[in-house]
Amino acid sequence: MLGLMMDMPLLVSQLIRHADRHHGATEIVSKTVEGTIHRYTYRDAHKRARQLANALKRLGVGPQDRVATLAWNGHRHFEIYYAVAGSGAVIHTINPRLFPDQINYIGNHAEDKVVFYDTTFAPLIDKLKSQLKSVKHWVPMNDEYDRLLDAQSDDFEWPSFDENTAVCLCYTSGTTGNPKGALYSHRSTIIHAYASALPDAINLSARDVILPVVPMFHVNAWGLPYACALVGAKLVFPAQHLDGKSLHELFESEEVTMSAGVPTVWLGLLNYMKEKKLRFTTLKRVVIGGSACPPAMIRAFQEEYGVEVLHAWGMTEMSPLGTVTTFKAKHRKWSAEERTRLQNKQGRVLFGVDLRIVDENGRDLPWDGKAFGDLQVRGPWVIKSYFKAEGGDPLKDGWFPTGDVCTIDADGYIQVTDRSKDVIKSGGEWISSIDLENIAVAHPAIAEAAVIGVKHPKWDERPIIVAVKKPGQEVSKDDLLRFYEGKIAKWWMPDDVVFVKELPHTATGKLSKLTLRQQMKDYKLGAG
Amino acid sequence: MLGLMMDMPLLVSQLIRHADRHHGATEIVSKTVEGTIHRYTYRDAHKRARQLANALKRLGVGPQDRVATLAWNGHRHFEIYYAVAGSGAVIHTINPRLFPDQINYIGNHAEDKVVFYDTTFAPLIDKLKSQLKSVKHWVPMNDEYDRLLDAQSDDFEWPSFDENTAVCLCYTSGTTGNPKGALYSHRSTIIHAYASALPDAINLSARDVILPVVPMFHVNAWGLPYACALVGAKLVFPAQHLDGKSLHELFESEEVTMSAGVPTVWLGLLNYMKEKKLRFTTLKRVVIGGSACPPAMIRAFQEEYGVEVLHAWGMTEMSPLGTVTTFKAKHRKWSAEERTRLQNKQGRVLFGVDLRIVDENGRDLPWDGKAFGDLQVRGPWVIKSYFKAEGGDPLKDGWFPTGDVCTIDADGYIQVTDRSKDVIKSGGEWISSIDLENIAVAHPAIAEAAVIGVKHPKWDERPIIVAVKKPGQEVSKDDLLRFYEGKIAKWWMPDDVVFVKELPHTATGKLSKLTLRQQMKDYKLGAG
Repeated sequence: MLGLMMDMPLLVSQLIRHADRHHGATEIVSKTVEGTIHRYTYRDAHKRARQLANALKRLGVGPQDRVATLAWNGHRHFEIYYAVAGSGAVIHTINPRLFPDQINYIGNHAEDKVVFYDTTFAPLIDKLKSQLKSVKHWVPMNDEYDRLLDAQSDDFEWPSFDENTAVCLCYTSGTTGNPKGALYSHRSTIIHAYASALPDAINLSARDVILPVVPMFHVNAWGLPYACALVGAKLVFPAQHLDGKSLHELFESEEVTMSAGVPTVWLGLLNYMKEKKLRFTTLKRVVIGGSACPPAMIRAFQEEYGVEVLHAWGMTEMSPLGTVTTFKAKHRKWSAEERTRLQNKQGRVLFGVDLRIVDENGRDLPWDGKAFGDLQVRGPWVIKSYFKAEGGDPLKDGWFPTGDVCTIDADGYIQVTDRSKDVIKSGGEWISSIDLENIAVAHPAIAEAAVIGVKHPKWDERPIIVAVKKPGQEVSKDDLLRFYEGKIAKWWMPDDVVFVKELPHTATGKLSKLTLRQQMKDYKLGAG
Repeated sequence: MLGLMMDMPLLVSQLIRHADRHHGATEIVSKTVEGTIHRYTYRDAHKRARQLANALKRLGVGPQDRVATLAWNGHRHFEIYYAVAGSGAVIHTINPRLFPDQINYIGNHAEDKVVFYDTTFAPLIDKLKSQLKSVKHWVPMNDEYDRLLDAQSDDFEWPSFDENTAVCLCYTSGTTGNPKGALYSHRSTIIHAYASALPDAINLSARDVILPVVPMFHVNAWGLPYACALVGAKLVFPAQHLDGKSLHELFESEEVTMSAGVPTVWLGLLNYMKEKKLRFTTLKRVVIGGSACPPAMIRAFQEEYGVEVLHAWGMTEMSPLGTVTTFKAKHRKWSAEERTRLQNKQGRVLFGVDLRIVDENGRDLPWDGKAFGDLQVRGPWVIKSYFKAEGGDPLKDGWFPTGDVCTIDADGYIQVTDRSKDVIKSGGEWISSIDLENIAVAHPAIAEAAVIGVKHPKWDERPIIVAVKKPGQEVSKDDLLRFYEGKIAKWWMPDDVVFVKELPHTATGKLSKLTLRQQMKDYKLGAG
């Protein structure tokens, strides 16, 4: 027996229609690529999205066709999100920071039919034009785009269809192999938007003014263009102007209350504000994710500027929000110091997602804040496979393995301790490479350090330190190992230290342990 | 092309599993029917719900069988909610305040198989036993209930099934005809729970301690037993102890931060607190709905006690939450006076529900805060028909007519001005009976007044006042009509005043205009 409730599929078009009908006068403010300010309302955005939907039809875009963007955060990008999704096509947000080869690969893999691009990317587009064979139209997001819309009526009824229909395609750039696409559905997008607006997540309301620093080409700006329409929050888009000065000016002039981005951007902003002795007038909280937020940054925001930090964790494969560090009732009685320490963890799940940590054999590990294992997730906004089944079935026992190694405490707060591929497996137990690296770089003579596992006849793997000394500083192998004493369990003690001139890095500046392991493939324990 | 997200139906069992796994140590505190305090955790509740699920199997409860409750808010009722719903049966929460005839009717109509009842209802149950033929087991919610659970293992896996499966049956007692059942689904219940926890709705988090005063037999205590599990809030149940003293003690001893109920209960609490000169230590906000909240009550809570009022509107047919009065960013700049005045309205919709006002011909009316018309709603937590198709198809053009007459302002805030069946249709325009009644009772000599429409040859209907004078007070027809001058549009002026000794009321004390119209059926305008 079924319930007798209205059969209404969850569709992305309902978000913009809702924002128009119930928050029609609320503003969307964009700093344009050119540096001017563009200002209109949800009602205007909905009208232009309908005009664009008509234009897409004229351009030959049919249901489920992929429409790509190479664009910053701005009102036109927002319109494209809704016009493409609402009319039943699939928006493919391309990350312009990928290597051109990768962009070629994913453009062809996605079979994009139309590409909308910000004019800052014109040189890149010139190179792509001969490569992306499926693309029928290249539309610069300037006057030409506006004319395309102006030629169309706003008379367009958003179609209704299965809520499981694909809505958006985002590729992840794995460290190995080709990028793989996560293909979200209307259903997953709406449920994720509900969950992410909850008080225990980003806490979004119609009283907020939200500036997503995180790009709309990076997992849909963590879903904010959807969640903001859901709650009717004022939106402020910064385009490519992400330096401290530009951001601070926009925060102040538009009375921004909430923002979201990766640690790197906040570092730039905080440095600028310190230098200029500036304050925030309206900013209440920031979501920090993408990589672990340094404890000093949490303190700076909260203690120096009175801005609450929401430390978050997620991934492209989960739309992306998984966990946020918000408090429980019991924490009211904790000291400020204890509360800040809890915020160094990545938080607890929103309802919808479940998670667990497992050992190498897939057995559940205890939630004691100490045991660490592979973090697995599941839920209606987690992928079950990649676009075109790339990489085969990613699931284990119905759970998606995140590739992160975590602890979970008794209250359900996770803390990422390593990447699965970097953790060192010694005698059936795991050693966190990140923990050992953090100790090494705390030594005054060490500039940078990587800890990797090397083969061992008895223990399977043992950790060794590969370290770069600071210029003019000296430290011996024994000195450095002594520095670990009392800081770790004895069996975690690295078996060796190898000093090198430099460590290998990826194009985006991250330590490349993959390359390092290749470089060290002939290293043998006891032979050094 | 479908998205590639995990296929996970939205099921009520996920709520209790989530609360157990991620908020396992959070408390559920119940004042029992006997007056003692019972205290356990979400983890315990989940364990007992699984034991009860096994017990239900033993009692012969199969998928979609109806299991009824006649019970107050308490931990056992909470367990029954989850055990019944989670195992795929349907929980039927009977309102014990209905007339015994109505309870007989709905028990037989629902074909309840098992009835769980609080022992306070034993006398009622004795009368029902011979009447409800479908019932196989009557289980008092005392030691006998506990023994039923204790005999079972907690080894039970919640089954997975279609999220559109029926989960809960709630009957509405219309003023005419038989009660009709709203049959919610797992899907509608979960989406409603997400929406109701949003910052623009009830704003629920794991930092809250929530005491639902609204009964679990009244539209699922407005969904709070679900929404609290979703966010992991501490729950406090008051059983039948709803007097001012009992409530205030429980608020204080359990550090309650949020509560929800109808105006009548709050009146009792506020009077008690004023008399005893008491304060709230932890209470931050109250949801007030069920009927319009008097402006003086909003002021008392906010200005005297510092407790925020969330004025809400909904109905059984919509799970029940439709609108809540929360502010938008623009209201930050309003004066306290203007903000409080806005709170006299019933608020704006949560994403998911849409609404509109229409005239007699179903034409959309403007959102200007002045035009009023029939309020219609639609959304995934609104019914499309009643259980067993009672009353035929209730929808008009895909919208559910609420029976309320409202204005909607430009920001989407609704204000209920009348019930559709009470509004007076004069010359194609509508006159609010409630507005005219409010003026009449503001006259110092009037104790109570009802305004009804009577037939008119030219205008179709015209309003007349039926009024009861205060003891020892005198007022003439002309005096009373003169009192309206300057307060209403001229064409709203009632055509006559009829003084009576008393007005008819329903069993629950509400003015019965239905009876009054029958009593006045021979009245003719100009004949008085």
